Amino acid sequence: MDLKAYLAERRALVNRALEGYLPRVRGPAFRVVEAMHYSLFAGGKRLRPILCLAAAEAVGGDPAEVLPAACALEMIHTYSLIHDDLPAMDDDDLRRGRPTCHKQFDEATAILAGDGLLTEAFRILADAAPRFEGREALLLEVIQLIGAAAGYQGMVGGQMLDLLAEGRQITFKELETIHRLKTGALLTASVRTGALLGGGTRAEVTILTAFGEKFGLTFQITDDLLDVEGDAAEMGKTPGMDARRRKATYPALLGQEKSREWARQLIQEGIELLAPLGAKAEPLREIGRYLLSRRS
Amino acid sequence: MDLKAYLAERRALVNRALEGYLPRVRGPAFRVVEAMHYSLFAGGKRLRPILCLAAAEAVGGDPAEVLPAACALEMIHTYSLIHDDLPAMDDDDLRRGRPTCHKQFDEATAILAGDGLLTEAFRILADAAPRFEGREALLLEVIQLIGAAAGYQGMVGGQMLDLLAEGRQITFKELETIHRLKTGALLTASVRTGALLGGGTRAEVTILTAFGEKFGLTFQITDDLLDVEGDAAEMGKTPGMDARRRKATYPALLGQEKSREWARQLIQEGIELLAPLGAKAEPLREIGRYLLSRRS
Repeated sequence: MDLKAYLAERRALVNRALEGYLPRVRGPAFRVVEAMHYSLFAGGKRLRPILCLAAAEAVGGDPAEVLPAACALEMIHTYSLIHDDLPAMDDDDLRRGRPTCHKQFDEATAILAGDGLLTEAFRILADAAPRFEGREALLLEVIQLIGAAAGYQGMVGGQMLDLLAEGRQITFKELETIHRLKTGALLTASVRTGALLGGGTRAEVTILTAFGEKFGLTFQITDDLLDVEGDAAEMGKTPGMDARRRKATYPALLGQEKSREWARQLIQEGIELLAPLGAKAEPLREIGRYLLSRRS
Repeated sequence: MDLKAYLAERRALVNRALEGYLPRVRGPAFRVVEAMHYSLFAGGKRLRPILCLAAAEAVGGDPAEVLPAACALEMIHTYSLIHDDLPAMDDDDLRRGRPTCHKQFDEATAILAGDGLLTEAFRILADAAPRFEGREALLLEVIQLIGAAAGYQGMVGGQMLDLLAEGRQITFKELETIHRLKTGALLTASVRTGALLGGGTRAEVTILTAFGEKFGLTFQITDDLLDVEGDAAEMGKTPGMDARRRKATYPALLGQEKSREWARQLIQEGIELLAPLGAKAEPLREIGRYLLSRRS
């Protein structure tokens, strides 16, 4: 399959849906909507929604049906970037080559834009109810699992641990916990959401969730490697920031070679898990392999 | 009825339920949970959950059934206070006589604690699904309406407008819009949620929502009056802050006497709407009357 064309097509699908959820101007509080829009359309890869759609496809589901959930996942991801970039957090001025939300607007607006995106994510999930008539319990299960993945038991907790770990020597086990919570949880939730809403059996959902876990960890290792080896222009951000911030990373703890080898092994294990799903899971396998060669 | 005893009993009920949702220590990211706990148990009146329970009662529902939604509303309210108090927003050091979250912890932790509470609110709403077997669509309707009330079309939008209005002369109509969004939307949503989950008919839900709108506006007027007339010790915060910040208020625009008269008239209209509900709505009427005499 042509992964590049597949990703472009899916990205366009997600972008159109997101545009529908968040028109450029609406209501009196236009400034916060403008800021939400600015960050939501800052050129993201749409990896989480694409994972969600591909997981639905892998169980024979209709990708269009899970589009609201896919958009919600991207909104949650974007909110987390806006808040993580704030001066009190990672204090980043640039994201994907453009000023971060608080630089483009101001801190108060950025905080509110993040809050607005997080809230809207849950609203559009619940608002998808008519598509799931008779399967409302499934939709509620998805809202619950996304909440768990995004909240203090997941992403928020991981960001807290990451901040607490800065400048401190941490163990390999601590590093794994941070990444499993900070980025892994939402990536895994994206796959699981697609599997559930796509109508997968419990066995299929279990397989795909396990794949999602391997994917999440592989993603983080390759993210750390990019920060060491990456090119500023391709990445749209400054490499070497982890080292400068004395952040714990896989290359720092394991070395680059071992990290790359481990990433390769992990995603291979994940791809093998998908065997029972046959050809329908091919996009998901390709997205997994792509992690090893990604440049941004 | 003895409103004081009623409120104390309901507050205790809500507090026990909240404790169950957020044990003092859980998981590895303890610091953010500690901060969430700190702000959630800072001595709030629990007005939104109590409104939600009273609305369920007013339609003959079981208050215990709507307790998860009541707790979710309080979590959302608490998150909004934490974020509003941040230096980039209202920059408040004290809340209910105690250091605000970012003063007690730090800014990053306070941002994350707010994010964590907002996310957890939606998670526990969805997690209440087993209580609503066969009525899952109703629960999804509630999640959607709370999301709309809390997000950019409601509370977040109101806070944005409030920040934009600071130090600027605004019209009476603008002031109403700010308050309808910033505080009114979530108060109205609290009443509507109780009415829906309590099993009210559509006619009852409409009546209670209209009451909630009057209640929300009355609440804001009496809040503004307290800032002019209130006692720092009883309020647990410094009065006169609105004037010092040149914030638009009802007393500033209408005068104190006219504001008080208008509040009295509004809540009276709201109470009259409740007539068809009979004695079951008495707690809600009493809570409405209490707005006129509240000291904090």
